[in-house]
Amino acid sequence: MRNILLTLSYDGTNYHGWQVQPNAPTVQETLQNAVKLIFNDSNGIIGCSRTDAGVHANMYCCNFKTESPMPCEKIRSALNANLPNDIAVKDVSEVALDFHSRYDCIGKEYVYRIWNSDVINPFENKYTLQYKYKLDADLLNEACKAYIGKHDYIGFCSAGSSVKDTVREVYSAQVTRNGELVEFKVSANGFLYNMVRIMTGTLLYVAQGKIQKEELPLIIDSKDRMRAGITVAPQGLFLNKVNYGEKVNYGK
Amino acid sequence: MRNILLTLSYDGTNYHGWQVQPNAPTVQETLQNAVKLIFNDSNGIIGCSRTDAGVHANMYCCNFKTESPMPCEKIRSALNANLPNDIAVKDVSEVALDFHSRYDCIGKEYVYRIWNSDVINPFENKYTLQYKYKLDADLLNEACKAYIGKHDYIGFCSAGSSVKDTVREVYSAQVTRNGELVEFKVSANGFLYNMVRIMTGTLLYVAQGKIQKEELPLIIDSKDRMRAGITVAPQGLFLNKVNYGEKVNYGK
Repeated sequence: MRNILLTLSYDGTNYHGWQVQPNAPTVQETLQNAVKLIFNDSNGIIGCSRTDAGVHANMYCCNFKTESPMPCEKIRSALNANLPNDIAVKDVSEVALDFHSRYDCIGKEYVYRIWNSDVINPFENKYTLQYKYKLDADLLNEACKAYIGKHDYIGFCSAGSSVKDTVREVYSAQVTRNGELVEFKVSANGFLYNMVRIMTGTLLYVAQGKIQKEELPLIIDSKDRMRAGITVAPQGLFLNKVNYGEKVNYGK
Repeated sequence: MRNILLTLSYDGTNYHGWQVQPNAPTVQETLQNAVKLIFNDSNGIIGCSRTDAGVHANMYCCNFKTESPMPCEKIRSALNANLPNDIAVKDVSEVALDFHSRYDCIGKEYVYRIWNSDVINPFENKYTLQYKYKLDADLLNEACKAYIGKHDYIGFCSAGSSVKDTVREVYSAQVTRNGELVEFKVSANGFLYNMVRIMTGTLLYVAQGKIQKEELPLIIDSKDRMRAGITVAPQGLFLNKVNYGEKVNYGK
């Protein structure tokens, strides 16, 4: 038996997120169908996280087991030949049999992209939130320092999550501007349901003056979902990096 | 009467080019419908060029006349509110009554984008040609110097054009690489039908060794369409800049 790790990127526009669900196309199902076409012994695909409907991935990891001796490079081209153009297998490698792409993940990075203009960018429309009032990236960058560190992020979690431990350690959080594109990039040991979208919505409250940047630590500490900002739209969100530490050596 | 100049950008994926035609959605028709909703006295819209089906524009200019006193800024927001998300009006200005967005154009710049990887980029798929064999951008950049200057480009023109004068002056032609993205950027006083796509196809012939870079001037001089490369796919092509010289002052 071999354990195969896939590194994907995908445009989530046409999918109801990662995880298989009835009556809606998902990335997992689409990938599973391609895997089944190539291997007969597929035992299902384990993904590094559920992503929501409409969310994209620059990097997403998943693994499956197979008895097939097919070389990794061949698996990669066979999968890409059988996948639609909005999902790409960028890398295939063989990992230890006990490797699990969700449980072994020690960190992730997300980026939330905002098109900061009163005019839509036709090419960024599906990959950004359009926000027409001029954002002060320096102010937001100052504000989001409050996110860094170990906090109970239960106030930044949508209802419907069954997670018990809501403490997460945020390693970095940064807002940068490049022309009309404003990006909020955040890395942590893990994220709660909708956490990045609520973090972004809260930064927009800071931009709107609904929250002062000095209040942000108190709002986190309050553990009160009502005090944080709205959950912004999914299409600006990208899973950007997945970290397995020593378990997977991407530099190979 | 006022003469109104619009500067657009559009994603051409869902359009059969600029020009109105029966039974197919075009950018001109879509824009005309939006203009009609706002003004009752529209005399039709003149575009700076026909673009082909599937070709995009970072910058496209067109003009129309109206008796309406509506301020330009208001025209812009009214049009954007009535256009689909794949067409954006970036700028609106009033120009001289005799200004004509096609006849007064003294130069254009196009960029042809190539995703140079054996793996599709799901986010660039509709905006690049995927080309899997590694391109030597330096070689192509050397090669495309042959395009610069005044040449009869009749050999780089698809059949179906009724243009009499096929001499064009190319001001600059350059190939650059940024990661897996290879761009061919070319500016000229004008372009023949499919000229940029054939120029790009010919550069790919150089990359493939079907043509030596030293032969390129001879191929241009031969005026023989058969000696140039293929017409590459439309989705990599962007109209990038439109130049009206002193007639339109974009720096205002």
